[in-house]
Amino acid sequence: MRLILVGFGTVGRGAAEGLIAAAAELADAGCSPVVAAIVDPLVGSVYRQEGLDLARLLALADAGAPLTDHPGAEPAPLMPDILDLVEADVVVELTPTNLVDGEPGISHARQALSAGRHLITTNKGPIALAWRELRELAAGNGVQLRFEGTVMSGTPVLSLCESGLAGAGIRSVRGIVNGTCNYILCEMEAGTGYREALHAAQQAGYAEADPSGDVDGWDAAAKALILANCVLGADLALHDVARAGISSLDAEDIQVAARAGEVWRLVARVDRTASGWTAGVAPERVGNADPLAAVRGPGNLLVFDTEALGEVVIGGPGAGRRATGHAVVADLLAIHAGRGRRR
Amino acid sequence: MRLILVGFGTVGRGAAEGLIAAAAELADAGCSPVVAAIVDPLVGSVYRQEGLDLARLLALADAGAPLTDHPGAEPAPLMPDILDLVEADVVVELTPTNLVDGEPGISHARQALSAGRHLITTNKGPIALAWRELRELAAGNGVQLRFEGTVMSGTPVLSLCESGLAGAGIRSVRGIVNGTCNYILCEMEAGTGYREALHAAQQAGYAEADPSGDVDGWDAAAKALILANCVLGADLALHDVARAGISSLDAEDIQVAARAGEVWRLVARVDRTASGWTAGVAPERVGNADPLAAVRGPGNLLVFDTEALGEVVIGGPGAGRRATGHAVVADLLAIHAGRGRRR
Repeated sequence: MRLILVGFGTVGRGAAEGLIAAAAELADAGCSPVVAAIVDPLVGSVYRQEGLDLARLLALADAGAPLTDHPGAEPAPLMPDILDLVEADVVVELTPTNLVDGEPGISHARQALSAGRHLITTNKGPIALAWRELRELAAGNGVQLRFEGTVMSGTPVLSLCESGLAGAGIRSVRGIVNGTCNYILCEMEAGTGYREALHAAQQAGYAEADPSGDVDGWDAAAKALILANCVLGADLALHDVARAGISSLDAEDIQVAARAGEVWRLVARVDRTASGWTAGVAPERVGNADPLAAVRGPGNLLVFDTEALGEVVIGGPGAGRRATGHAVVADLLAIHAGRGRRR
Repeated sequence: MRLILVGFGTVGRGAAEGLIAAAAELADAGCSPVVAAIVDPLVGSVYRQEGLDLARLLALADAGAPLTDHPGAEPAPLMPDILDLVEADVVVELTPTNLVDGEPGISHARQALSAGRHLITTNKGPIALAWRELRELAAGNGVQLRFEGTVMSGTPVLSLCESGLAGAGIRSVRGIVNGTCNYILCEMEAGTGYREALHAAQQAGYAEADPSGDVDGWDAAAKALILANCVLGADLALHDVARAGISSLDAEDIQVAARAGEVWRLVARVDRTASGWTAGVAPERVGNADPLAAVRGPGNLLVFDTEALGEVVIGGPGAGRRATGHAVVADLLAIHAGRGRRR
């Protein structure tokens, strides 16, 4: 299995670390991935037909050294030209999410799938904005499109829906899919105001300098959209997802809830209504017995209401370099096993 | 995909209901199962080469009428003779668990696998007592052995480990895998003594007249053993699983824990030690912030500690006719998709 990694920032390096850490388990499954190229306009782009040493590239990138210092590595062109230069089975798209137009992820995805390469992506943009087009492109080219890392990072929620929950009749999904907001809300439960809690999240590395993608609910809305369209078969656009963030909550709101034995959570929901599927994200007060109340800090948790099983919950990390890297490993194993043909 | 159902008691009927309920999703996946025979020494045994109408058989069984009242159905021999009479791809073994010698499940499993049939079972006996032998038999005959229903009934914990958690480096598992004990412990939190709580569990249909399989930890021990051997690659026997039940707990224990902000849970554990994997089941006091504390009544929940993701939790029903029936549907879809070849 030959791979091209597109993007070698935090997520790309997490994927490389995941591939290194899971080497034995990949080999056990009969899968020995060879990374033939890494392309990133900022960090650098290299290829080597015989395969690159990921540990060496990680050391180079972390030290800010040029990736071409890797023995035998040649400078590489970016997407899509790299596809002509390097034989590959799988393109792993690891560029940052852009929910305005999905670029450059959507172009990378189109190029890879059109060229008959399987696509793994951790980038919410292409899946949130162009799922149906990309799915058809994958099907038309006989390749797989996998994106476990787009929802709850490496916590295996999409593969759960694809395998064990298949046939269980999912009626609705609700849960916490943005760890940054949950971290802020938990800080506020300890008595801090919104501003201070946001600052703490930024200090802890959970929130970015411009936090609007998280606190205004865009990230959670994209994930709700992916669950609605890709798991539940809805056909919604991002603007169909009702969206409210947490920045309007203040210390008083938290205290009022606490006196009622409740906590605030930013809840993503996908529900079936008489007129079809709806998706939304909004802060909600939940009782202490609700599994969402038990999710502390940057954790994520989804509750699936199913016909066969009633409620099934899955929880785990919602972010993190290593966790997102695992999503790539899981998707690669699924491609290797030929699973997920229905996607 | 042609099926023989072995066992048509509660679990067998749940499987039939699951197959009916999931017919559309099975068809979507390109899988149209035909049940050609149902064999049960108590309820009756019938076959029809063109396939049986499951809804009609359910109605007959629930009414106590002979299954041969199904139009066109012939009386069938039991296992293994039915294998010679009816062409089938999959044998679905749904007889009750017997942890003493695994019978009749182990014999049914051996017969089916030796005859080149895929095996789905919800019966803990064969998997807890003869996993390695049966796995080799399946591999040698080029067929699959699947048993989602043996742990947390239809909550898809085994497929989660097989797909999304593959490569994540599971370090340990702990959790609640016996809903009857959890129901009793939750009743006791409300102030009842052990005897009354057990009686309530029996009245609610969670505990059997002889409750020892549940309250003495045998059921949980078998599930811990299955997780250890089948998911984590251990090679333990049932007598290697340290086992303590809940019958020694009294109202005073519950109150002492409550005063410390804790609750009692029957916790199954699989851990890696210097000398290999260990598995055990024992009542433990857990803090209110522990996800196990939030599991109420007959629910089940497992916490996987992984290298790539830290803690991942999955929770859902641990029993129930419809839930266990779903496990059969999920296993059938996996066989259809050719997944799980590593088993």
